[in-house]
Amino acid sequence: MQLSLNTVTVREKWGLPACIEGAVRHGIPGIAPWRDVLQAMGVEQAAKQIRDAGLTVTGLCRGGMFTQPGAIEENRRAIAEAHAIGARCLVMVCGGLAPGSKDLHGAREAVREGLHAIMPEARAAGVTIALEPLHPMTCADRSVLSTLSQALDLCDELGAGTGVALDVYHVWWDPDLARQVARAGSRIVAFHVCDWKVPTTDTVFDRGLPGEGVIDIPAIRAMVEQAGYTGGFAEVEILSKRWWAEDPDEVLVEIKRRHVTAV
Amino acid sequence: MQLSLNTVTVREKWGLPACIEGAVRHGIPGIAPWRDVLQAMGVEQAAKQIRDAGLTVTGLCRGGMFTQPGAIEENRRAIAEAHAIGARCLVMVCGGLAPGSKDLHGAREAVREGLHAIMPEARAAGVTIALEPLHPMTCADRSVLSTLSQALDLCDELGAGTGVALDVYHVWWDPDLARQVARAGSRIVAFHVCDWKVPTTDTVFDRGLPGEGVIDIPAIRAMVEQAGYTGGFAEVEILSKRWWAEDPDEVLVEIKRRHVTAV
Repeated sequence: MQLSLNTVTVREKWGLPACIEGAVRHGIPGIAPWRDVLQAMGVEQAAKQIRDAGLTVTGLCRGGMFTQPGAIEENRRAIAEAHAIGARCLVMVCGGLAPGSKDLHGAREAVREGLHAIMPEARAAGVTIALEPLHPMTCADRSVLSTLSQALDLCDELGAGTGVALDVYHVWWDPDLARQVARAGSRIVAFHVCDWKVPTTDTVFDRGLPGEGVIDIPAIRAMVEQAGYTGGFAEVEILSKRWWAEDPDEVLVEIKRRHVTAV
Repeated sequence: MQLSLNTVTVREKWGLPACIEGAVRHGIPGIAPWRDVLQAMGVEQAAKQIRDAGLTVTGLCRGGMFTQPGAIEENRRAIAEAHAIGARCLVMVCGGLAPGSKDLHGAREAVREGLHAIMPEARAAGVTIALEPLHPMTCADRSVLSTLSQALDLCDELGAGTGVALDVYHVWWDPDLARQVARAGSRIVAFHVCDWKVPTTDTVFDRGLPGEGVIDIPAIRAMVEQAGYTGGFAEVEILSKRWWAEDPDEVLVEIKRRHVTAV
């Protein structure tokens, strides 16, 4: 697979212009911006510069958060942005429990209804909605969509224009993974890599680079390719206080090395 | 449901003798010792004192750890201890990946084989083996048994003398929970309560008392009772640096209060 740089990986030191230049400088052919850096650069300017650089936009991070007020409008803006930069998909982090609520079923219904609400715009814009199951430890505050099975049930219901973003960090533990990856098949529209460290000292910001942890990434990669993922990119997305402190150029060198040895 | 005190809840300040006395003093009718405090007190002495105090032993924590060297012998000792104190079950924390390994499938096979190996002793001793699915965030280092579905598949395979220990902390996020609880039925042999705090600052030692977090404990309790759990006890098991720092008598008062309002 080819390498794609998710901009969150170097978010403390590089904005989107530096990420685009850095990807080119390091021979990384893909990029996946987060919306904050995209908006900071300006969507049109970013779209032009990414196009001129010849980079593939493997995804835009992120839509979703359907249990928050104003989510539908926010997702419409995200869809327009994803369209403008030619992103292969808009990655959905669906949202946790509503503020102050313990109603998990209600949160899941809000996600379902929110997705139904935005699909017409997404289809009209030609933007694929990539549902990303997030690790169950994020269920309360980030995503009540916790398993690939659950994501595929939603895809089945929502129909054309939907797919899944598979991040090894979120799904590696799932006893049902092989079966659900096979079920997903060509609906896998994004493949994200990073690693689970032992010990993990933060539930959000302690991810490892590929090879730093215990996930058998090559096995999952093979599973995903065999199932029918034809995207050809592995997107490196590292939320890590430890790696954010380093020089981004050195981080990219390390990622390129590990992309060969550990993905 | 009646209340049972899992000794880990006050482990920093009370050994097993103090836990037994504390349970009696606070009118808590159940107790669930961990093996370290049981061994420190002496198994025979503990058995006598628990019996004399009229406490129900809702479980012994813990057997399992099948991916560690010497696990089978260790589990045999645990079975003998569970028998000696008349524990309703021996709770199994099955073990994470083998040291230095990324072989998740192999770890699950080791768990399966280990359970098969110990079941004859467990049946002979009349000790019910309670498989406890642990939160997926513990998959690498504590338990590759991550879901109730997986635990029940193992129960189906192992047959008589097995059941599940259901801890709301580990399973609350599971989209398949209602269906699997119904499937479990009377095989639920232990029901553990605590809460998921937002934010959670430690993947092991930051559990909340019931009501401190976002788990709808009464809903899960109702589900479990309706499915056929007839044990009648809710066992409070709190691994928490914050609560370990408090006076255990005050912690028990708080737990009793919350047992009424939040379980």
